[in-house]
Amino acid sequence: MHSILKEKQLFTPFELHQQFEDYLVLQDQTGDPKELYEPMQYILSLGGKRLRPVLLLMAANLFSDTIGNAMGPSVGLEMFHNFTLIHDDIMDEAPLRRGHQTVHEKFGLNTALLSGDIMFVKAGTYMFLDDMQISIEMQKVFSQMAIAVCEGQQMDMNFETRLEVSLADYLRMIELKTAALFGCCMKIGALSVGADKRDSREIEQFGYNLGMAFQLMDDLLDSFGSPDKFGKKVGGDIIQNKKTYLLLKSLEKADSQLLNRLKFWLSTTEDSQEKIEEVVGIYEKLEVKTETQQEMLRYHEAALANLENLEVEDFRRRPLREFSSKLLLRQL
Amino acid sequence: MHSILKEKQLFTPFELHQQFEDYLVLQDQTGDPKELYEPMQYILSLGGKRLRPVLLLMAANLFSDTIGNAMGPSVGLEMFHNFTLIHDDIMDEAPLRRGHQTVHEKFGLNTALLSGDIMFVKAGTYMFLDDMQISIEMQKVFSQMAIAVCEGQQMDMNFETRLEVSLADYLRMIELKTAALFGCCMKIGALSVGADKRDSREIEQFGYNLGMAFQLMDDLLDSFGSPDKFGKKVGGDIIQNKKTYLLLKSLEKADSQLLNRLKFWLSTTEDSQEKIEEVVGIYEKLEVKTETQQEMLRYHEAALANLENLEVEDFRRRPLREFSSKLLLRQL
Repeated sequence: MHSILKEKQLFTPFELHQQFEDYLVLQDQTGDPKELYEPMQYILSLGGKRLRPVLLLMAANLFSDTIGNAMGPSVGLEMFHNFTLIHDDIMDEAPLRRGHQTVHEKFGLNTALLSGDIMFVKAGTYMFLDDMQISIEMQKVFSQMAIAVCEGQQMDMNFETRLEVSLADYLRMIELKTAALFGCCMKIGALSVGADKRDSREIEQFGYNLGMAFQLMDDLLDSFGSPDKFGKKVGGDIIQNKKTYLLLKSLEKADSQLLNRLKFWLSTTEDSQEKIEEVVGIYEKLEVKTETQQEMLRYHEAALANLENLEVEDFRRRPLREFSSKLLLRQL
Repeated sequence: MHSILKEKQLFTPFELHQQFEDYLVLQDQTGDPKELYEPMQYILSLGGKRLRPVLLLMAANLFSDTIGNAMGPSVGLEMFHNFTLIHDDIMDEAPLRRGHQTVHEKFGLNTALLSGDIMFVKAGTYMFLDDMQISIEMQKVFSQMAIAVCEGQQMDMNFETRLEVSLADYLRMIELKTAALFGCCMKIGALSVGADKRDSREIEQFGYNLGMAFQLMDDLLDSFGSPDKFGKKVGGDIIQNKKTYLLLKSLEKADSQLLNRLKFWLSTTEDSQEKIEEVVGIYEKLEVKTETQQEMLRYHEAALANLENLEVEDFRRRPLREFSSKLLLRQL
């Protein structure tokens, strides 16, 4: 009976997503001058999976039946994520985000830049709780993560003009650009409900491994996803000559003939179906799809091991175990 | 004897400037990828008056003979100030800063944007001391200030395309864009050495009033400064049709003939000596120079009154009293 009651206090990801949306609309997103706050309202209203706040709330729920203290931080981290999207879209000159105009397209470069800045400030203001020690710890974790994300973004930009990028470089880049934020979300969720040092560290590692796997899956979906399920244009990475795991592994494995074809396509910025088809064909021929999947699954297994290492009752792990599997195995 | 000893522990602004520079070079400004950190090193190495950190250290020295705890925050606030310069220069498409290439001119837009972001994160990491309560208070003061500065910058951008700007609007804008940072520096300097709530509030007000006066003086120098002493191009505001106190006051006081001339010049973006001379002539004719000086002096007097209200021994006020007078009365 006791255990059943407790199980009732474990929320499903769907319930947490709903709780997040309900909490988000209660936040005052207005301000003066309105030109500064409209882009923030706009991008936050575009929705998306809210993956990061949901994961943060799940991390809190792992350790506590009540997760009220995690709500504010979940808004903060979603705001941070959207700040990075605004600035990244400026840097990539991207026209679309979640099927809508990007902020700089809609509001102009200057306002996009400045709205991004203010979202970053606002994000940080959510990293406070009544408990001073936890607040300071959260502030520090948040800052470290933000530094990692900036470094990752710069590495990603560097790769655009660099010919030689190793797989290790690539993994380091996604560790900073993507996985650090996942790790931060999990750690802050845990800290917000008073999890101890060891467990906070372990769940941070879970988030980090999940983030790595998530990015590798994103690379796979970009080349092999079905157009109706994948949110972005299939083959986008190939057209942009993005140095993904698939491409780098292929460059490593290709014989001279295939290497020449890859290098030929890398030297063009042509947006053609032909380019996508030939490159995807090479990926298949070299079996790098399988190898990328294996790499992804290794990170997923590492994440599941982190979950097992936590000092919590076993039934509490279930939602994260199921959610992460569903997240990573979708569309494969 | 006691009082003389104490007086010896009051540092001059020159000494504090030197201490700041010595402390700044000890900071690790390197990092990986280096492309992200080079712009930070570059802009911080351009020097400048270091007005904000010196004021912060003077605020600390008001309350304490030892100011070690204020050194970190002084670096943080100078870093924040330089972050705003990088992003503002992008928005203004400014080619030069302190006589050198702006960051976006030298390193490109994307790197400038991202280096600005990381400087902002780094700035925040300096707002921590061993004392948790003070750290949290400093974090909050810092965030509020950053929000104000973003709002001020957006207001300033809005003014570019808005015809009707009142003097009250203008004062509100410089309060947010300039004075908030001055207030924050003083408050954080005071907090870092354990000043009490009342004194921290009063010295923040001092900083705010000083910042208002400083911006009005900057407006005056732009039109009436001598080219060799003023760091920027004399008449720059006039060429750019900036809505300054001088211009707004003139639009308020001008008869229909002078109003037509002002409106004529406002409708052009011509970079001519003729434009500068005629507009400066109108400012003189309408005596708005004197009125702006009077407004500036009112803020300065208010700042001095804040200084008198502090619960400190009188001799401790002297450096700030003298420094603020020298700062504001230079070149008038």
